[in-house]
Amino acid sequence: MLVVKKFGGSSVADKERIFNVAKRCIEEYEKGNQVVVVLSAMGKTTDGLIAKALEINPDPPKRELDMLLATGEQVSVALMAMAMNSLGVPAVSLNAAQVAMHTTSAYGKAKLKRIDTERIRHELEARKIVIVTGFQGISKYDDLTTLGRGGSDTTAVALAAALHADACEIYTDVEGVYTADPRIVPNARKLPEVSYDEMLEFASLGAKVLHNRSVEMAKRYGVQLVVLSSLTRAEGTVVKEETKLERMLVSGVAADKNVARISVIGVKNTPGIAFKIFNLLAKNNINVDIIIQSIGREERKDISFTVAKTDLKDTMDLLNKNKESITAQDVTSEEGVAKISIIGAGMTGNPGVAAKMFEALSSANVNIKMIATSEIRITVLIDEADVNRAMRTVHDAFDLAD
Amino acid sequence: MLVVKKFGGSSVADKERIFNVAKRCIEEYEKGNQVVVVLSAMGKTTDGLIAKALEINPDPPKRELDMLLATGEQVSVALMAMAMNSLGVPAVSLNAAQVAMHTTSAYGKAKLKRIDTERIRHELEARKIVIVTGFQGISKYDDLTTLGRGGSDTTAVALAAALHADACEIYTDVEGVYTADPRIVPNARKLPEVSYDEMLEFASLGAKVLHNRSVEMAKRYGVQLVVLSSLTRAEGTVVKEETKLERMLVSGVAADKNVARISVIGVKNTPGIAFKIFNLLAKNNINVDIIIQSIGREERKDISFTVAKTDLKDTMDLLNKNKESITAQDVTSEEGVAKISIIGAGMTGNPGVAAKMFEALSSANVNIKMIATSEIRITVLIDEADVNRAMRTVHDAFDLAD
Repeated sequence: MLVVKKFGGSSVADKERIFNVAKRCIEEYEKGNQVVVVLSAMGKTTDGLIAKALEINPDPPKRELDMLLATGEQVSVALMAMAMNSLGVPAVSLNAAQVAMHTTSAYGKAKLKRIDTERIRHELEARKIVIVTGFQGISKYDDLTTLGRGGSDTTAVALAAALHADACEIYTDVEGVYTADPRIVPNARKLPEVSYDEMLEFASLGAKVLHNRSVEMAKRYGVQLVVLSSLTRAEGTVVKEETKLERMLVSGVAADKNVARISVIGVKNTPGIAFKIFNLLAKNNINVDIIIQSIGREERKDISFTVAKTDLKDTMDLLNKNKESITAQDVTSEEGVAKISIIGAGMTGNPGVAAKMFEALSSANVNIKMIATSEIRITVLIDEADVNRAMRTVHDAFDLAD
Repeated sequence: MLVVKKFGGSSVADKERIFNVAKRCIEEYEKGNQVVVVLSAMGKTTDGLIAKALEINPDPPKRELDMLLATGEQVSVALMAMAMNSLGVPAVSLNAAQVAMHTTSAYGKAKLKRIDTERIRHELEARKIVIVTGFQGISKYDDLTTLGRGGSDTTAVALAAALHADACEIYTDVEGVYTADPRIVPNARKLPEVSYDEMLEFASLGAKVLHNRSVEMAKRYGVQLVVLSSLTRAEGTVVKEETKLERMLVSGVAADKNVARISVIGVKNTPGIAFKIFNLLAKNNINVDIIIQSIGREERKDISFTVAKTDLKDTMDLLNKNKESITAQDVTSEEGVAKISIIGAGMTGNPGVAAKMFEALSSANVNIKMIATSEIRITVLIDEADVNRAMRTVHDAFDLAD
């Protein structure tokens, strides 16, 4: 059996944790399995390197920033190989060039194109544990690239796909995927499994267990993931294709406070204006979530939508600069808002679900500002101050507690 | 004109020094020259990484140690490229794999085999400053290697040779090569030039300006070096093939306190014993300098020689273990000794030089314990306590002062 195991930066933050990871990997190896380990940079290393770069150059060339950041994972994998070696198990570390892990040249957000498996296979056949740098790749010119947020998870999934691994385990600092954030909803329950689509919704809604990119890749290549804790022996959550058997109506509740609402006021009520606005945002890599358009009875109408709070400034600048071409009379924004969502592959075509959610919120006196739905989620925009109360209320309404 | 410039770790230890180096390189670039910069890891980075490794594994696999250490220079070159970019000059950093810098697989002490110049040429033709990681290479399996002590100097010289550079400048924290260590001999004079052979003698005698390996390579490929300061604008010392014109008799005086004397007492006075002893040491990579053998009038004789103080323990262990096969009755050692040497290509075949040196030492009441000579140097072993006085005396005797 070939197992890919991915550990994040906090799992390798110091000597003790490095040895903890080394021992867990060796357990797998001693079962006779082939083990490929993907590591992030230790602890806050990447942040430290970015700070160093910004000290030198407030706008560093992206190629050079990737060259710098790539050292972080290389340190992790080398130290891990030393730790395993000191425990008497042969291990070899490989960086992105050595693998090789081919990506596009989009520094800082490169996309994986192809992974050569020859070197890894060779080392596995020599009965070594193979430790690979996550988060990084090489362009067709052999320049180092990084994959951006969630990069190490994506590396792990891509390796699992390329190597036809029997398992892909993503170790985090939580024990799996929960029906809600246990820090906010104390009686939240760990899910034994979720579908790729549900996981995608959880991820996009701020349950930072797995990044969307890695889930999308897992779905595309049919890589079954397990999310589990690097610190405990609990079972974790399996992420896989939906089984349709005994689906729960709703799998969980997620909240996202990284939200701002923007309203474009008084745009001309003619076809193509909405397209113009959202095309402008898309071209600038700004993701829009909920969209509401006032019904255009008059000559002009309003369009409101939400963006990530971190994109607010860029979005406002962009819209104000293009005010004329989008025919807006004004652009306003609101920051003190949050999204809460219920997610569940089982709720498709079940109209009672939305009603139950709204009823629960209403009884808890939570005002709903905007609503959006997809096949497997219902999202509402509410005041940020109401988030925790709203989550607990909705969690209870759907009997998600332990 | 193509110029290779090498800067050591202390020259890039912090933001201010990085910008100092960036500016000096840009001055060269703005003359219209092509500039290749070789950097070491920042300040004490390499020591820090080694400490981290030893914390994890007191005897780390050498391959993994090199994988770890190679990150040090990669950080330097990336930050330097960012600094130059912020000053408005296009620059690109390249690591050993990107260059590619091919070496043997002897981790920790790899030897350079071949340097591909295509990528560097390509970047130079695009009018970029090219910043290359010193000290590291790749094996034929694409594994990272390091070159060991003096590695970055060697990288610079090898690059200069491969690129047929017009100049190879080694920037250090001194202004060049001196007739003696200015901290000991205050009126020591900077030499405008020295021959490769003289430089080799200076280096092997503890004037840590250039490592022997880089000088040997420079000599082999006829690369003319300049040693100069990264902090001042002083002219530096040119290291090149001997010109024979107006040679000074003696170029300088060097001292070496990393010395110990070993005596092998009462070995059999038969042919082959000395060979046995020194072959044993050579096979264990122990360098022997001065050798004295008592005249064998009897059945047994004594052999004394010097080794680096850092090799003393290994040498004693080795000799004691092989006491029988080398027929020794006893092995003794002495640590409180030092070598001082006069070096000069001009003294070949000039017997008065040695006499003058011994006379000066005698008048200063310095006892000579052992003597060794080569074509371009005369070395004496003295008490360590006499070193500074001896140096000043000899320096004066040969009129080396400013």
